[in-house]
Amino acid sequence: MTAETIEILDKGRALRVCWSDGESARFHAIWLRDNALDPRTRSSANGQRLITVLDIPADTVIASAELTVGGDIAITFAPEQHQAVFPAFWLREHGYDKPAPAGNGWLGPEIEPWDAGLQGQVPTASYDRLRQDRAALGAWLGAVQRFGFAVVTDMPTHSGGLCEVADLFGYVRETNYGRWFEVRAEVNPTNLAYTNLGLQAHTDNPYRDPVPTLQLLACLENSVEGGDSIVVDGFAVARRLQAEDPKAFDLLSRHAVRFEYAGSSGVCLRSKRPFIELGPDGEMIAIRFNNRSAAAFTDIPYEEMAAFYAAYRLFAEILEDPAMEVSFKLRPGELFIVDNTRVMHARKAFSGSGKRWLQGCYADKDGLLSTLAAIRAETRREAAE
Amino acid sequence: MTAETIEILDKGRALRVCWSDGESARFHAIWLRDNALDPRTRSSANGQRLITVLDIPADTVIASAELTVGGDIAITFAPEQHQAVFPAFWLREHGYDKPAPAGNGWLGPEIEPWDAGLQGQVPTASYDRLRQDRAALGAWLGAVQRFGFAVVTDMPTHSGGLCEVADLFGYVRETNYGRWFEVRAEVNPTNLAYTNLGLQAHTDNPYRDPVPTLQLLACLENSVEGGDSIVVDGFAVARRLQAEDPKAFDLLSRHAVRFEYAGSSGVCLRSKRPFIELGPDGEMIAIRFNNRSAAAFTDIPYEEMAAFYAAYRLFAEILEDPAMEVSFKLRPGELFIVDNTRVMHARKAFSGSGKRWLQGCYADKDGLLSTLAAIRAETRREAAE
Repeated sequence: MTAETIEILDKGRALRVCWSDGESARFHAIWLRDNALDPRTRSSANGQRLITVLDIPADTVIASAELTVGGDIAITFAPEQHQAVFPAFWLREHGYDKPAPAGNGWLGPEIEPWDAGLQGQVPTASYDRLRQDRAALGAWLGAVQRFGFAVVTDMPTHSGGLCEVADLFGYVRETNYGRWFEVRAEVNPTNLAYTNLGLQAHTDNPYRDPVPTLQLLACLENSVEGGDSIVVDGFAVARRLQAEDPKAFDLLSRHAVRFEYAGSSGVCLRSKRPFIELGPDGEMIAIRFNNRSAAAFTDIPYEEMAAFYAAYRLFAEILEDPAMEVSFKLRPGELFIVDNTRVMHARKAFSGSGKRWLQGCYADKDGLLSTLAAIRAETRREAAE
Repeated sequence: MTAETIEILDKGRALRVCWSDGESARFHAIWLRDNALDPRTRSSANGQRLITVLDIPADTVIASAELTVGGDIAITFAPEQHQAVFPAFWLREHGYDKPAPAGNGWLGPEIEPWDAGLQGQVPTASYDRLRQDRAALGAWLGAVQRFGFAVVTDMPTHSGGLCEVADLFGYVRETNYGRWFEVRAEVNPTNLAYTNLGLQAHTDNPYRDPVPTLQLLACLENSVEGGDSIVVDGFAVARRLQAEDPKAFDLLSRHAVRFEYAGSSGVCLRSKRPFIELGPDGEMIAIRFNNRSAAAFTDIPYEEMAAFYAAYRLFAEILEDPAMEVSFKLRPGELFIVDNTRVMHARKAFSGSGKRWLQGCYADKDGLLSTLAAIRAETRREAAE
């Protein structure tokens, strides 16, 4: 992608770039100066910016601009007389002269909402493969990004082995539950997860801020009747809610709710966040939902509370619709990971003479997405060689 | 606090409660039913809710309500014929029949914005005191909640000793930088923090999502000239921005920016969040600011980019105003903690023949605020005994 023509606009305050495919976009002089890639602006060692916005004169304009032989753009900024070359493809990738996203609840292109149609196509890989084959790890991490969950088989079977899966891409988030924790029926449970009750689809630890953005659940034993795992795409539930009742979606995204957990001594965790979290541009960025730890909602005006509860009910009805769920029964040596800001997980009640022993741990998406981006960059470099 | 009178409203769909001090508030039947504290609704072992919203009939009304001898409120819900008693003080604490917060950028009562006037009153405690005196720990954690930073003296001086401070209230967040990391001038720095350059006031790791919500920085050696630490209250900066130029505040809170770090191999961290993050009700909940790792802003419409940069500049001018900053020079054995979603930290450039050796680590506010709430609950229980 090269630039074909450039045009200085508005007395040097902006530049129009036309690329070889006929597309064009405008860039402000101040934006270009701030994002210059030359070694006086960005460290060549680590890519970090060496200047602050205050180092850039407020009256910065483009004094001159020309196309290089390779089709990139060389700019001299006044009053600094600073020179920098902007690769044409880089400008194309970082354009902002485009329509703003319309409406609320949109999802980025890397996210694919799903429903029960995904049953039978659960992204799965064996632990050994993930450990030995960087491309397989990239594909599996890509599935976690795209679908918000995935399965690992043939896990290390020792206690705590799930942390080794987290080590493949990131870092365990330790909490008051420990570096990892046991999920099995207990006599005096500090959490309803440690019973044989069914659990409605939920995100974990919504009473925590920041919430753990990934959860791993590994199976060590599962000989009970029932106890199946269910996953539901919270983004898909929210979008269906929006389609069926746009006002309900607005209520659940415009108001914060409260969560609280104080089930064991010395612990008192509280948060205030909406069920459906939107970025400032309306992008849907997180779901928090958990009936067990929802506290009294005190941030919704009296006039809207009845409608809010109706919206909450509709959200719950949709998430319990079998048409939305993918289910599986974990076998010993299997693990599933969920994006805990998106995919809700549930379990069916269990009984019988057997045992159900799971271990869980938390981790964060920053590490996972970083490893994924690094693998993709390696792949691009290898392809280019 | 007891209830004086109650009144069933709207055919049982709501209840008005008047307390002994003359205050009154309305509560919906569905909200009351959902928040009942009886042992069929909430586990008496751990306080978690045993029912989901779908277990509550949509047509739930209050069939009858009466004051108990103690001044609490006993309610029977139809059609379930479910009975529950609501403590009058609990209802008072959880009322929602009140005006919604007006406008954007408000702060909760537990937050106290500050400027250079706090110099000389930096919340400080010795490590031994924090370890041995639970009330002192509570006061110090309360200062972190209120002001967003605090200092510890007389630290364990061995390498990694700062993690023992984090252990006092919560859990270290491990990242690609390690469980803790060295901050000293290096020959081939993967991060500009590892040089002797001055660093503009910033929050750490804004390219991470979730961002580490606490940072600890401990001093092992500091015999250079310069290298002073500076802290600036990002909430105070944002509020001053709002007072001086409300449109600038709106621009920085209504648009997301991008951050990126790819300074070492295998790492490629990216985020998209606003400089000033508001909750859905306009509460100011987080600041992200870092000139070094700000990526090209691509989510601001062309028409607003020039004004956005002017707002960005004004924010930077305010944060560099000495009237906003508290500064100190860490001595060996001293540490400071910052709420990394609020308080920005900076360092002055340093030189000279000495050495400056700091260690940093990350942790999260959920653990800190939980420990603080638990200590406060203990104190209340002891006072009541």
